[in-house]
Amino acid sequence: MSAAKWPEAHSQSKALYDRASKVMPGGITRILPWQEPFPVYAGSGSGAYVTDVDGTRRLDLLNNFASLIHGHAHPAIVAAIQEQVTKGTAFTLPTEPEVALAETICARAQGFEWIRFSNSGSEAVMCAIKAARAITGRSKIVKAEGVYHGSYDYAEVSLDSSPENWGDDPKSVGYSNGTPEGVKNDVVVIPFNDVEAAERIILANRDSIAAIIIDPAPSYFGFVPVSQAFIEMIRRVATEIGAVFILDEVITFRVHSGGAQTRFNIKPDLTVLAKIIGGGFPVGAVAGLRKFMQVFDHREGKPLLPWSGTFTANPITMTAGKIALDLYTQAESDRMDALGDRLRTGVTRAFANAGFPGQVTGFSSMFMVFGHQREINDYRSGYSSKDEMKRVTRLQRNLVLEGYHIAKTGKAFLSTVMTEGDVDGFIAATERAAKRAMAEV
Amino acid sequence: MSAAKWPEAHSQSKALYDRASKVMPGGITRILPWQEPFPVYAGSGSGAYVTDVDGTRRLDLLNNFASLIHGHAHPAIVAAIQEQVTKGTAFTLPTEPEVALAETICARAQGFEWIRFSNSGSEAVMCAIKAARAITGRSKIVKAEGVYHGSYDYAEVSLDSSPENWGDDPKSVGYSNGTPEGVKNDVVVIPFNDVEAAERIILANRDSIAAIIIDPAPSYFGFVPVSQAFIEMIRRVATEIGAVFILDEVITFRVHSGGAQTRFNIKPDLTVLAKIIGGGFPVGAVAGLRKFMQVFDHREGKPLLPWSGTFTANPITMTAGKIALDLYTQAESDRMDALGDRLRTGVTRAFANAGFPGQVTGFSSMFMVFGHQREINDYRSGYSSKDEMKRVTRLQRNLVLEGYHIAKTGKAFLSTVMTEGDVDGFIAATERAAKRAMAEV
Repeated sequence: MSAAKWPEAHSQSKALYDRASKVMPGGITRILPWQEPFPVYAGSGSGAYVTDVDGTRRLDLLNNFASLIHGHAHPAIVAAIQEQVTKGTAFTLPTEPEVALAETICARAQGFEWIRFSNSGSEAVMCAIKAARAITGRSKIVKAEGVYHGSYDYAEVSLDSSPENWGDDPKSVGYSNGTPEGVKNDVVVIPFNDVEAAERIILANRDSIAAIIIDPAPSYFGFVPVSQAFIEMIRRVATEIGAVFILDEVITFRVHSGGAQTRFNIKPDLTVLAKIIGGGFPVGAVAGLRKFMQVFDHREGKPLLPWSGTFTANPITMTAGKIALDLYTQAESDRMDALGDRLRTGVTRAFANAGFPGQVTGFSSMFMVFGHQREINDYRSGYSSKDEMKRVTRLQRNLVLEGYHIAKTGKAFLSTVMTEGDVDGFIAATERAAKRAMAEV
Repeated sequence: MSAAKWPEAHSQSKALYDRASKVMPGGITRILPWQEPFPVYAGSGSGAYVTDVDGTRRLDLLNNFASLIHGHAHPAIVAAIQEQVTKGTAFTLPTEPEVALAETICARAQGFEWIRFSNSGSEAVMCAIKAARAITGRSKIVKAEGVYHGSYDYAEVSLDSSPENWGDDPKSVGYSNGTPEGVKNDVVVIPFNDVEAAERIILANRDSIAAIIIDPAPSYFGFVPVSQAFIEMIRRVATEIGAVFILDEVITFRVHSGGAQTRFNIKPDLTVLAKIIGGGFPVGAVAGLRKFMQVFDHREGKPLLPWSGTFTANPITMTAGKIALDLYTQAESDRMDALGDRLRTGVTRAFANAGFPGQVTGFSSMFMVFGHQREINDYRSGYSSKDEMKRVTRLQRNLVLEGYHIAKTGKAFLSTVMTEGDVDGFIAATERAAKRAMAEV
């Protein structure tokens, strides 16, 4: 290993970034790990820790953005994959591991009667929305403002609305440049957790709505849980207008062995899954009630929604996913709740000690740091000014220097291989990092 | 292993199908491997062969639908993945294998200046189309009738048009039930290889076209190569109207070490890749000219097209992909050309000997069997009647019983681990299978 470390100019991370910039726009595949002046490059991961290419070891609170519930290179998954890879990584034909993971997931929640796999959460959201259109013959979807559901254009609408364009009732705002008018017109945007306004807006479009998609604890505003009144309204209104209620549990499935729907007693028609159900390999899925899932059934000729995909349900992902879920018992999920509470209590104290005008939100193994102290119920109350965002970025940068990876947006996730000692170390580092972040202003 | 074999009622495949039917619509994740009365379940693969769960070994001409250019469990890939899995399968941070595969691919074709990864071909097509909209600020795409570009709604339009709905100039026909009008309105459909009609249709929509997407040898009508005149028109017209020319090389990249674009001297703006570039793991990518790829660049703030993805560019896919491409030299590609020619010549003779009124099309390592003998230039001339399709399905079923896997649509692919002996065995089996298929009518 070289003596230089990130972000020094002679580090191995800098050398890789220079190579990468010649062949990739911005030198990177994902935007999330970008940071000035160049990203940290991972060398290897083991358990709760990642060692970068310069030999610096850090506690990984990103876990491939919430997909590694057991951290890196879990021995049981490593052994099973080393075996499966000798038998083949992908077949056109179906395999036993695909059936086994389907059985494992379907046993996890009451509404998971049938399941269909895909390669990512984004694909699974697209699949669920297309399924809802195929079921209803309608085209519009309802989503909440500022909630992330992957990269399908429809699901991305109003993801980053700002005070300049969000309107009184939420406007349908395209996320990327050139979003077609047809996409914006087919998305109805509602305010999260506002029962009255959301119901009014949905009912005004009742005859054209195929689906209502809801994340029970949206990551973009700090994993604030959906209120019981709001989710009950969504369930009631979806049935009333004949729309499909899709619950996005791509991230929240980790909050209980049966997902947020079991923890909060939510009864969706279809659920979108991804992240931890692949055990560290690319995955997505739609699970739900048979009466809706039957749109995928090919046995009576062309299905209403044909859905395949070259790498879907490959035996590597299926094998790893089953092990990861089998290891993620309710006892482990309960332990994550307690560890998360310890972290949030400690970080709140650390911010107070440092005079850092921020807060930490979330529950279970999910948390997010904000650069403001306003109460957060939805996207607008969570919305940060540029200065408040910079405060979080400064904190995050200092945490990297302290040996801790969280997202520069402030989001982070625990894994089952983390200890109370890891969390206490993070709390102490947060106090030091918060003090330095304040001194840098 | 049990004594029963597919499709016997006491086979292990039947037992798995019964389990699968309880948890998956139609008991399967992908439509392709479905066959009456239940699919064959893969147990393991080694080189050119797959052994099913009942112990029957067959030559695999599917290769996970064209994604395994070196067959199953290639020793070099197995060893590298067994090593990489101990270091971690997925990170939020970038890694060296991502940079290395990007460099390897960018060195393969003149127009691959920058590259961005995704998890599948479908995601990559969506990414390229969204990029074209972000570049141009326009919303429509142009695609050829009957050409498959993955499961993004826009790309799926007019995939299975039929004489009842295809119109004179190709109509924009939704593929799945409930395809929004907004999607159909934003897709302009052209006839493949018809220079005059296609140019006229494109120019009639010139001010609203973001992209023209073309597969240089569409799988749905037998890998018929695009004519030089047609592709030159597409290149010229795209430039003239300010649209982005996207080449879909998800399958055709295998026809030359530098893809079909190098073999046929095509100069696209963006290219979509997937399949073989992941070495048997989930992958997709968009590669192209910097002036277009810069829409992804995040270094000046929010890019025109933000594109990330939890599992994109994971070090497992990147490591396997680089080995697969390094092993796929131009000499290997040339050898695939010769082996494919041997197969097509032999199958043509076998059909004649069997009195089977069909034909085999394709070039290089790709081929397709049709149940008719009409000359094929585009979707409509390739279009099969129900009886002609049944002829192919009967042939395919008899080939399974002979020990050979091709798709029930007649499509199939060679891999570098196949020998002349494998191909000669397939030709002999095809003659027997064709005779039995004829006797079954």
